[in-house]
Amino acid sequence: MFWSPDCVENIVMGINGQFPGPNIRARAGDTVHVELTNKLYTEGVVIHWHGIRQFGSPWADGTASISQCAINPGETFIYQFKVERAGTYFYHGHYGMQRSAGLYGSLIVNLPEGEREPFHYDREFSLLLSDWWHQSAHEQEVALASNPIRWINEPQSVLINGRGQHNCSLAARFSSSSKAVAQCHFRGDEQCAPKILSVLPNKTYRIRLACTTALSSLNFAIGGHKMVVVEADGNYVQPFATDDLDIYSGETYSVLVTTDQDPTLNYWVSVGVRGRRPNTPPALTILNYRTTAAIELPKSPPPVTPQWNDYARSVALSKKVLSRMGTPKPPAKYDRRIILLNSQNKVDGFTKWAVNNVSLTLPSTPYLGSIRYGLMKAFDQRSPPDDYPADYNINEPPSNPNATIRNTVYRFDFNTTIDVILQNANALSVNLSEMHPWHLHGHDFWVLGYGEGKFTDKDAKGFNLKNPPLRNTAVVFPYGWTALRFVADNPGVWSFHCHIEPHIHMGMAVVFAEGVELVRNVPAEALTCGLTAKMFLNEDSKAWHG
Amino acid sequence: MFWSPDCVENIVMGINGQFPGPNIRARAGDTVHVELTNKLYTEGVVIHWHGIRQFGSPWADGTASISQCAINPGETFIYQFKVERAGTYFYHGHYGMQRSAGLYGSLIVNLPEGEREPFHYDREFSLLLSDWWHQSAHEQEVALASNPIRWINEPQSVLINGRGQHNCSLAARFSSSSKAVAQCHFRGDEQCAPKILSVLPNKTYRIRLACTTALSSLNFAIGGHKMVVVEADGNYVQPFATDDLDIYSGETYSVLVTTDQDPTLNYWVSVGVRGRRPNTPPALTILNYRTTAAIELPKSPPPVTPQWNDYARSVALSKKVLSRMGTPKPPAKYDRRIILLNSQNKVDGFTKWAVNNVSLTLPSTPYLGSIRYGLMKAFDQRSPPDDYPADYNINEPPSNPNATIRNTVYRFDFNTTIDVILQNANALSVNLSEMHPWHLHGHDFWVLGYGEGKFTDKDAKGFNLKNPPLRNTAVVFPYGWTALRFVADNPGVWSFHCHIEPHIHMGMAVVFAEGVELVRNVPAEALTCGLTAKMFLNEDSKAWHG
Repeated sequence: MFWSPDCVENIVMGINGQFPGPNIRARAGDTVHVELTNKLYTEGVVIHWHGIRQFGSPWADGTASISQCAINPGETFIYQFKVERAGTYFYHGHYGMQRSAGLYGSLIVNLPEGEREPFHYDREFSLLLSDWWHQSAHEQEVALASNPIRWINEPQSVLINGRGQHNCSLAARFSSSSKAVAQCHFRGDEQCAPKILSVLPNKTYRIRLACTTALSSLNFAIGGHKMVVVEADGNYVQPFATDDLDIYSGETYSVLVTTDQDPTLNYWVSVGVRGRRPNTPPALTILNYRTTAAIELPKSPPPVTPQWNDYARSVALSKKVLSRMGTPKPPAKYDRRIILLNSQNKVDGFTKWAVNNVSLTLPSTPYLGSIRYGLMKAFDQRSPPDDYPADYNINEPPSNPNATIRNTVYRFDFNTTIDVILQNANALSVNLSEMHPWHLHGHDFWVLGYGEGKFTDKDAKGFNLKNPPLRNTAVVFPYGWTALRFVADNPGVWSFHCHIEPHIHMGMAVVFAEGVELVRNVPAEALTCGLTAKMFLNEDSKAWHG
Repeated sequence: MFWSPDCVENIVMGINGQFPGPNIRARAGDTVHVELTNKLYTEGVVIHWHGIRQFGSPWADGTASISQCAINPGETFIYQFKVERAGTYFYHGHYGMQRSAGLYGSLIVNLPEGEREPFHYDREFSLLLSDWWHQSAHEQEVALASNPIRWINEPQSVLINGRGQHNCSLAARFSSSSKAVAQCHFRGDEQCAPKILSVLPNKTYRIRLACTTALSSLNFAIGGHKMVVVEADGNYVQPFATDDLDIYSGETYSVLVTTDQDPTLNYWVSVGVRGRRPNTPPALTILNYRTTAAIELPKSPPPVTPQWNDYARSVALSKKVLSRMGTPKPPAKYDRRIILLNSQNKVDGFTKWAVNNVSLTLPSTPYLGSIRYGLMKAFDQRSPPDDYPADYNINEPPSNPNATIRNTVYRFDFNTTIDVILQNANALSVNLSEMHPWHLHGHDFWVLGYGEGKFTDKDAKGFNLKNPPLRNTAVVFPYGWTALRFVADNPGVWSFHCHIEPHIHMGMAVVFAEGVELVRNVPAEALTCGLTAKMFLNEDSKAWHG
C-alpha cells in the first residue's frame, strides 16, 4: 500500500492496513493464534516470530524454504505457537527481502498473571526501530543479484515505530550541515509525524527496543537521561547504566529510564547509525514531560551518535551485557564445535557472502519436510564444513575469492551441546571487515566471549561460563570472533544467519537440523510445495488421474 | 533484471536473460515442450500461450487460478501442448500484472512441411508490439487498487520487439513539439537501439505483428508502402490493402509489403497510439533498402497516426477483416446467448470494471481443479447473469455505480453454440466510453458483427454468417456492441477477458467452463495449491501425520 514512512510517499508491505503491522501482546504461557491471509497479488509470504522458540511447533517459525512453504496469494495460514517466556520480541517477513519492504511489527509477551519483573517500572513504551530506502525491496533484490553488484547504499531514513523524516529535521536548528535542513512541521496526523514519548516526572519507564533494520546498526540515546539495561532478547540481564546503547538488527532490549530531569524542558530521543560510514540522519523524537507543551523542541542539540567506527566502544558495550542471576548456565563442555568463517566472495562474478566458503541458496522444498520425510533430492546431502583452512588470512581479501553455492545442512545429534565460533575476516575490499549480527532460530545461545583476530583453542580458556548472556542474536565484530554455545534440544530445522537482509539475500546463512525424526503433526498446509507436495500426490496418484 | 527498453534503465521481467523472451518457432502439428523455471525471489509465475487452443491440454493454458496454480520460486513447470495451426502467436505472463512487467515473447507456428501459404512472400519479419511504463508493474498494481484509484496514465513508450526511445526521437528533425526533442544516436548495441528492417528491392515481405500492450491500442504504418492484410489471430483473412492497420492488445496480424519504392531512400515504420488521448510518442524504426546506408534517416516525416478518437475509421477497418474462403463457417444458430455489459463501477469506494455488474476476483484454487473435482467451496457456485437490466442506460454513467465482487463461472453445455454479445457503455465519467479488446482462451470465435448503441434482437438479423472472421480477440467500440459466436467444444476452464491488463486487474473478466468432466490426466503440479492440494492431502492424511 502507499505510505509515507519518512514523509516521502512509497509502497510499504502493510498488515491490516497498518504500517508497521499491529502490535501483538500476549502473556507467557499463552498460545498465540495468528491467521495470516496473503493479499499480495503475485508474491508468497511468511512471518517469522523473532525470539520465540517454537518448541513443538517448528513449522510455525515462519521461514520460507526452511520451516514451511510460502503462503500463496489468496490463501490463509494459521500460525499457532506457545510463548513460553515474557519479554520483548518482534515479528517480520522471512522471504526474499520482505522485511526491507516493511513487513514487521512488535510482539510483547507479558509475565504470567501474578508474577512480577525483577525490577520496578511505572509504565512502558515500545519502540520498533527500522531503516528505510526509497528504492523498492524488489529493485534492491535485483540490484544485489546483478553482475556487477549494485550495492543498495545506506538507507534514506531510520524509523521509530515506522516514522522518520526525510525532507526535514526535527532538530533543524542544530544542524551543522552545509545544506540547509528544513524544520519539520506537522499537524500530527501525518504517517511520518513522530510519536512523542509523553512522561510524568519522577517515574520509571521501561522502554522496549526492537531492532528490525535491514542493514543498519543503531545507537539509542535520550538527551540528559541515563538508562539502565535490564533485558536483552527476552532474557533478563545484570542491570547496568549507560548513556547510550548500541542495538543491532535482530536484537531487542529493555531499558529503564527515570524521569528525574528538569520537567520544564523537553529532551531528544535519538537513534543514529553506527558500524557503517553514516549517510543517514538519526531518527528523532521527543521525550516530553507532560508539564511542558509537546510542541516545544528541546533547547539543546540531540545526543551525538558515537563515532561510527569506534568498534572498541561497541565491543565494550556488548561485553557489559551479562546474564542476571538465576539465568540458566551453559553446559560446561561442548559436544561439537563448528567454526564459521564469514567472508565476502564471488560466484561466477556475482558478489556473495559465504560461510566456510558456502553461500546459501534455499531449495524450493522446505527442509523441515524434506528431512522429516527423507527426500534426499530436495537438497545437497553433503555436510557443510565445520571449519575453514588453517592458512586462511583473515586480515586480507580472500586470496581465492570464489565460493560455492549450496543448500547443505548442519545436522546435530539431538540434545548435544554445540559451540559455534563466528570468525570474521576481511571482505573483498582491502581494509574492510563488516559487523554481522547473527540470529539463531529456535534457540537462545550463551555468548561465551568476543575476541580479536583469529580464534584459537587458547581463546576458549577465556570463555565466560559464569554469567554469559543468553540471547538469540550476537554480533561478530570486524576482524574478530564471537563464541556461542547452545543445546540442540528443539526438534526442527532452524536458520542461523546474519540478520542483515541484503547479506541473507547474498547467501550469508546456514541451516541447522536436530531431532527432526521427533517432529510430529506438521500441518499439511506448511508443506504443499516442491517435493513434499509431490510425494503426497504420488502416494495418491489415483485421485489425480480420476 | 535491469534493462533499458526505451533507453531509460528499469527492471524488466526477462526470460533466459533476454527481453522480450526468446522467439519460439514450431511447425503445425508439433508438440511444444517448454520447461519454465521460476527464478523470481518471491513471486509466482505462469505463461499463457496466446492463440493456442490447448485442446486436450487445458492445464497448459497458463492462467493462474484458472488453469493452474502459479509456479513457485525455484520450481519448474512443464508446458506441453500441441500447436495445431500455422500462424502468428505470442506468449505472456497471466498472473498479476506480469505482462506489464515485460513477461512476453513471440510464438510463430510454421506450416507443416510441404504445405504452402495461400499467398506468396519471400521473407518475413516478426514485430512484437508493447507499451512500457517507468513505474513498476508492482507499483501499478497497488496504484490501481488504491482508494481513490491512482490511474497509471499513458505509457512512457511504445516498444517494437522490446525497443523504444524515450529520451530521444529517431524522427527528431520532423518534430513539431515545442519541447526540443533530441536526435537519437546509437552505436547499435544498445538495448533500446531500434532493429532496422533491412530489405531488398522488389520482394514481398510478410510482417508478422503481435500486440501485447498492457493498455494501448496501436496503429501500424510504413511510410510510402501499402500493405495487404492476410492473417489475423492465426487465421487467414480475405486479403485487403491498407495504408495503416489498427491493432489492439491481444491481436496478431500478418501483412504483406512489397518493396516497390525508390530503393535509394529509407522509410519510416511507425507504431502510434489510438483510442486513448495520446500522450506517448510513436515507436519508430526504419525500413532500409539494402542499397542505402541504414544510418540515413528518411527524408520525409513518419506516417501520421490517425486521429486517436476517430472511431468510425477504426470500426471501418475492423469490418474489413473477413475470413478467407475455406475458413470454417459458424453454425447457423446459437444454443445460448449471453449479453455482457461492460461497465466501470465502484466497490466499497474502489474503482472497478465489471461485466453484468460482477467484477471478477480470482480464487486461490484453480477452477480447472475445483470444477473437475467438485470442490464447491472453492468459488461462488451461483451463475453469473446472462444479461443486464433492460432499463440500463448505456449512454450515461451508471445510475448506481456499485458492483459486486464475485468469482462465479459461466458453465456451458458441451458442444453447444454460444453467442456472446459484448455491450459497451459509458464509464464512470460523463461522455466517456472506452474500447475493450476481448480475448477468449481455448477457442476462436466468429465475429458476427459490430454495431452502435444498445444491441437488440433485431441487430442479429444483420449478422455476417457468410464470411465472419475467425479470431481470438475482438474489440467492443465505445457505446457499441460486438457479437461473437463459438462452439463450446474444448473441455476445460477458459478465461474471457478484456486484454487491457489494468482492466483485468480491476475485474474485467469472466470465466467459461465446458466439458470439464471430460478432462483427464491433469498433471499434479498444476493443482498443488488451495483446496485441490488440500483434497489430495486429506485423502492421504496418514502420511502427513507419520
